[in-house]
Amino acid sequence: MKKIVPYVHRVQYYETDKMGIVHHSNYIRWFEEARIDMLDQLGIGFDKIEARGIMSPILSVDCRYLQPVRFGEDVVISSELTEFNGIRCTIQYEIRGKDDGELRTKGNTCLAFLKSDGTILRMKKEHPDIYETLKNQIREEKTVTS
Amino acid sequence: MKKIVPYVHRVQYYETDKMGIVHHSNYIRWFEEARIDMLDQLGIGFDKIEARGIMSPILSVDCRYLQPVRFGEDVVISSELTEFNGIRCTIQYEIRGKDDGELRTKGNTCLAFLKSDGTILRMKKEHPDIYETLKNQIREEKTVTS
Amino acid sequence: MKKIVPYVHRVQYYETDKMGIVHHSNYIRWFEEARIDMLDQLGIGFDKIEARGIMSPILSVDCRYLQPVRFGEDVVISSELTEFNGIRCTIQYEIRGKDDGELRTKGNTCLAFLKSDGTILRMKKEHPDIYETLKNQIREEKTVTS
Amino acid sequence: MKKIVPYVHRVQYYETDKMGIVHHSNYIRWFEEARIDMLDQLGIGFDKIEARGIMSPILSVDCRYLQPVRFGEDVVISSELTEFNGIRCTIQYEIRGKDDGELRTKGNTCLAFLKSDGTILRMKKEHPDIYETLKNQIREEKTVTS
Repeated sequence: MKKIVPYVHRVQYYETDKMGIVHHSNYIRWFEEARIDMLDQLGIGFDKIEARGIMSPILSVDCRYLQPVRFGEDVVISSELTEFNGIRCTIQYEIRGKDDGELRTKGNTCLAFLKSDGTILRMKKEHPDIYETLKNQIREEKTVTS
Repeated sequence: MKKIVPYVHRVQYYETDKMGIVHHSNYIRWFEEARIDMLDQLGIGFDKIEARGIMSPILSVDCRYLQPVRFGEDVVISSELTEFNGIRCTIQYEIRGKDDGELRTKGNTCLAFLKSDGTILRMKKEHPDIYETLKNQIREEKTVTS
Repeated sequence: MKKIVPYVHRVQYYETDKMGIVHHSNYIRWFEEARIDMLDQLGIGFDKIEARGIMSPILSVDCRYLQPVRFGEDVVISSELTEFNGIRCTIQYEIRGKDDGELRTKGNTCLAFLKSDGTILRMKKEHPDIYETLKNQIREEKTVTS
Repeated sequence: MKKIVPYVHRVQYYETDKMGIVHHSNYIRWFEEARIDMLDQLGIGFDKIEARGIMSPILSVDCRYLQPVRFGEDVVISSELTEFNGIRCTIQYEIRGKDDGELRTKGNTCLAFLKSDGTILRMKKEHPDIYETLKNQIREEKTVTS
């Protein structure tokens, strides 16, 4: 299990709305930024995945907004692969203020791995290296209990 | 209970991504479009709510992506108020293709009503007309069972 | 010369920023909405253009912000094809408040027509119908003076 | 004249469109990112400017798209203050690929400094430190010729 360096995002002015805080839709985009960075760190970046003809459509997303994020802040996004069954995986995120360390947002993205024609991909057989990389990121206790 | 006319959104080119389909973050924005339109139809649009000093921050959002949406389509978004306890409410959405009627996305937004200083608002006492309007939108059978 | 029906855009909450007005980058997106709608009205929508293997990358854009646009407004965007030389064209936009008719923003987009492999397309020879449609939209006096 | 360190932006998946390249509206947002970073480097960041009750609405923007930018790239954005007359200023940008150094996009933003009530601000008299900081960023030769 490789230790993932959390992703830092600088909050942009165009990400705010008239309530004076970051618009809630942008956290979904930040999850994507952090997820892509995590896959890069694991050596299986989007460019490599797409070069092998693998698509990874999003199946679902959820997000809980605990404290607002404001312009002028940097946020730190930690990503963890919490589930992977060879076909789909779930990534869990926590967004914290860089300065105060306070938890602002929690969420999950679930995505599938498909062939470029949209059919099911048997990751374990067809891309054993990617399969192993992802499997190794699941925490021991979780693998046992689930 | 007022019948809500579903909201129609024309898919924009800038809403697509390099997968050739609408980027998944945009559905969260479409939920907002439909929610604001629903509140307008109920006579309690954002302008009126904000004019009374009521804030409505988003507490959580979830979305399941069933079928992709593409540029050139119109989508129809139906919104339904499924929960309201006087402090927070949940709105459920279904997004369908306008031409094929096929279900593409389902989701929920949960939001709170607060005073502009961020403190709890007792909607029933302070804004009984808004309270009644929202309460009346909850379907009978749901009110009984929940 | 076909009369183009101006395009109406409802301003969305997510298009505002913490200054309380629409973020300036969104007007560029609204230009695109109006342009696509204009091409649809001319019978040469993006779907038809792309189906013939024609790409239309943006070469330049400019925008002057005269008066801000706010959430809760509808805006009316008029588009006019002001230049077309068979290879590239310029579209001019005016954005007005729907209620007050007041001019808020003016701008232009210049785009090229290319083959899908990125090479120059001789529109007049290869797609004479599209060529005529676009040429007919240029106002007489402008054709003479320029 | 303080030397400004160019701003680096990592291209995000959600910034692409179905043409497979970055959507042209996003460059306007990147200009903003670079501009805010430049002001920070000059010690007159947005937080300081807004804390003094100064608003800085955008008056105009223009952008020329020379070469597309793709997902997976980092871009380097250099910003230069090219005009400042005490009331309004122009910032010029160049966006280059970080790896190839190739020029992709050029553009300008013109913005005004106003009081928070929207009236004209006499920067030289009311905020001489900000005035001097901005004036010092204009290249000598330009001050002479213009």
